[in-house]
Amino acid sequence: MRVTRNARHPFYERCHEVLDEIRQQGRYRTFTPLSRLTDRFPVYEEGMAPPPEGREVVVWSTNDYLGMGVVPEVMEAAVAAVREHGAGAGGTRNIAGSSPLHTELEAELAALHGKEAGLLFVSGYVSNQATLQTILTSMPGWICFSDQMNHASMIAGIKGARGSQTVIFEHNNLADLEEKLAAAPADAPKLIAFESVYSMDGDISDIAGTCALARKYNALTYLDEVHAVGLYGEEGGGVSQRDAVADQVDIIEGTLAKGFGVHGGYVTASAEIIDFLRSTASGFIFTTALPPSVVGAALVSVKKVRAENWRRDAIFERVHAFRQRLRAAGIPFTMTPSHIIPVPVGDAERCKRISARLLREFGHYATPVNYPTVPVGTERLRLTPGPSHTDEMMDDMVRALSVLFREEGIVHTWQPQPEGVG
Amino acid sequence: MRVTRNARHPFYERCHEVLDEIRQQGRYRTFTPLSRLTDRFPVYEEGMAPPPEGREVVVWSTNDYLGMGVVPEVMEAAVAAVREHGAGAGGTRNIAGSSPLHTELEAELAALHGKEAGLLFVSGYVSNQATLQTILTSMPGWICFSDQMNHASMIAGIKGARGSQTVIFEHNNLADLEEKLAAAPADAPKLIAFESVYSMDGDISDIAGTCALARKYNALTYLDEVHAVGLYGEEGGGVSQRDAVADQVDIIEGTLAKGFGVHGGYVTASAEIIDFLRSTASGFIFTTALPPSVVGAALVSVKKVRAENWRRDAIFERVHAFRQRLRAAGIPFTMTPSHIIPVPVGDAERCKRISARLLREFGHYATPVNYPTVPVGTERLRLTPGPSHTDEMMDDMVRALSVLFREEGIVHTWQPQPEGVG
Repeated sequence: MRVTRNARHPFYERCHEVLDEIRQQGRYRTFTPLSRLTDRFPVYEEGMAPPPEGREVVVWSTNDYLGMGVVPEVMEAAVAAVREHGAGAGGTRNIAGSSPLHTELEAELAALHGKEAGLLFVSGYVSNQATLQTILTSMPGWICFSDQMNHASMIAGIKGARGSQTVIFEHNNLADLEEKLAAAPADAPKLIAFESVYSMDGDISDIAGTCALARKYNALTYLDEVHAVGLYGEEGGGVSQRDAVADQVDIIEGTLAKGFGVHGGYVTASAEIIDFLRSTASGFIFTTALPPSVVGAALVSVKKVRAENWRRDAIFERVHAFRQRLRAAGIPFTMTPSHIIPVPVGDAERCKRISARLLREFGHYATPVNYPTVPVGTERLRLTPGPSHTDEMMDDMVRALSVLFREEGIVHTWQPQPEGVG
Repeated sequence: MRVTRNARHPFYERCHEVLDEIRQQGRYRTFTPLSRLTDRFPVYEEGMAPPPEGREVVVWSTNDYLGMGVVPEVMEAAVAAVREHGAGAGGTRNIAGSSPLHTELEAELAALHGKEAGLLFVSGYVSNQATLQTILTSMPGWICFSDQMNHASMIAGIKGARGSQTVIFEHNNLADLEEKLAAAPADAPKLIAFESVYSMDGDISDIAGTCALARKYNALTYLDEVHAVGLYGEEGGGVSQRDAVADQVDIIEGTLAKGFGVHGGYVTASAEIIDFLRSTASGFIFTTALPPSVVGAALVSVKKVRAENWRRDAIFERVHAFRQRLRAAGIPFTMTPSHIIPVPVGDAERCKRISARLLREFGHYATPVNYPTVPVGTERLRLTPGPSHTDEMMDDMVRALSVLFREEGIVHTWQPQPEGVG
């Protein structure tokens, strides 16, 4: 191999500088090699060696919240679609890549959210980025009111919309949002972009209140339900379904990769908005359609999740059971109204070290969450127990955390707080 | 269903305006529902009804150029990965979504292009957009020299890099590129972004010539080999491998969804560039990893394509055979040095109508390619025959085209040209 490395070009040196800086801040990321074992989820094999050479660990950081990715009917739907239609879609949606499965899944997702139509994207990231950027460049004068804690993918779409104006409002602060809406020109086209469940803090927005402001100031509403679909609402339609306000939201965005356990993203909205996006969004048009196996598996998963309420009951029972154990052991965590349990550490190096020791010494895996995913100083472990985490796993994990937090000198500042969901 | 449609907000009206405009220009897209039949590829079933209710058609527009998506070993690798690891990855690469399969595929792709490292993205679109945007915002003063015909995904990344400057050079025109490089400040960090095979015209760039200019003016080179990987070079490493200049290119980008028949995109480069992108690119960090089934299938596909030269021989033999038939029948097509056969029509409405009649009356499917995929006035059918297209299919397709082109009054302006590859 003759290596290309143009030492004269400043970019090579710049890469080293940036990487050194990241290392010095203690936030250089090393990906832990993990192989999910479908018959033993949430047990994974850790290590680069193929099973059974690896070591079994319990994973507490999956975003497959309900474990739908290992449900036999979901896996068999993927298998059937591979064998019937092949390993890939073979083209964009326009270039021979649109199968009846794609159309059926889009209709199913529209029905889930009570909307007229849906549109699939290759990821939740792309659905946010492409949709927001396309809408916010559709006519002159757009002002986007964006929650301060919105996900990177929404920010990418909003920033990418050159010519539009962005007003950032304080996180989940409707008074601040209203002040800023009132200050904007009445006739400018406005959009409010926000999430239901904020994934790193686990807090939940006031969708009804936001929509009331949207009506008052004539703003379009764009809601990211990525960490809520499958888990909230009577059919898993998200917090907007739970709060019975889905019909007040113009555009609901979601993912197939978390609560539904598969892959890909989507938006649902009125027929003309979806047709507009389908016809003009670069990130939708110029990309290969999702593979039939992904679409087939997602279709079965969404149908099951809609019909099977016990899965939602199970996750919140498990989250409650785990919080009780953390509380009893005096391990600090942030009480949230969602299924997400942030365990604050507050230092990138220490966060990485605790995660590494947890894995090496105790056989439990929790991803260290550092900047840029969360602000510097708020580093944490983020735990997402699900229906498959047993009492024994929880007891063992809490024992491990107790030892590590004592040894690593984490101050137990946690104060009892009123309990929300779970 | 209570439909959300805020009639007071101007965006709803704007959607209708834009869609009406698209319809008036004759370029409103309707996706043809097609189900690939793995055992009969390139025969698909057309229609929304599940097989065997649909109608069998021969597809001439797949981007699964070599038919790798229906190779039994590739499909069985997908099946095995689903059953071992589940239907999705369950998290980002950092959040429990990195399996040994991902790492192995990245190493395989790096080896294919003779680079130190590789990085997977959820699509080729995202690999272009995220990589270019991240590099071009890595330090002040970047100037990006971008071929006028670059793909929408490269343009998205280049435009998304606020603060950088873009200089568009004439398509495949090295004299124009040199003039523009020479006019730029000598000490500004420069990048040349270009493709090897341009997919809509099927022409091929002068990689060696471009790299020579890059050396002379100290520019980084970014090469999109999306429509070339698998098909060109002794192992399918693309035109840069065929021309023995891969080591002169700083960053080679490719896809797993076309020549390799699966899904997803990637870049390969030196270790520090890949580590820089892995550590800083928003579109890589904040997105769920590719499903194990996609990665497992792609790994087998890439290995097979590297090893099995007969697949490359087969596609170029078939392309040659089809061109001979088109030529004998007097059907106009653009002679290209690649495997892509553009058949010019030059009018959006007529292009759509020919495609629709071809499907309805003759059972052949060729996507109409209209704006925004190609400039207005250059509308075309774009045919990509592959190893599975038989002589009989070709004879039948050419007969159908002859009838349609006569009836639709397409002027046969094609002139014999020297033959290139195929």
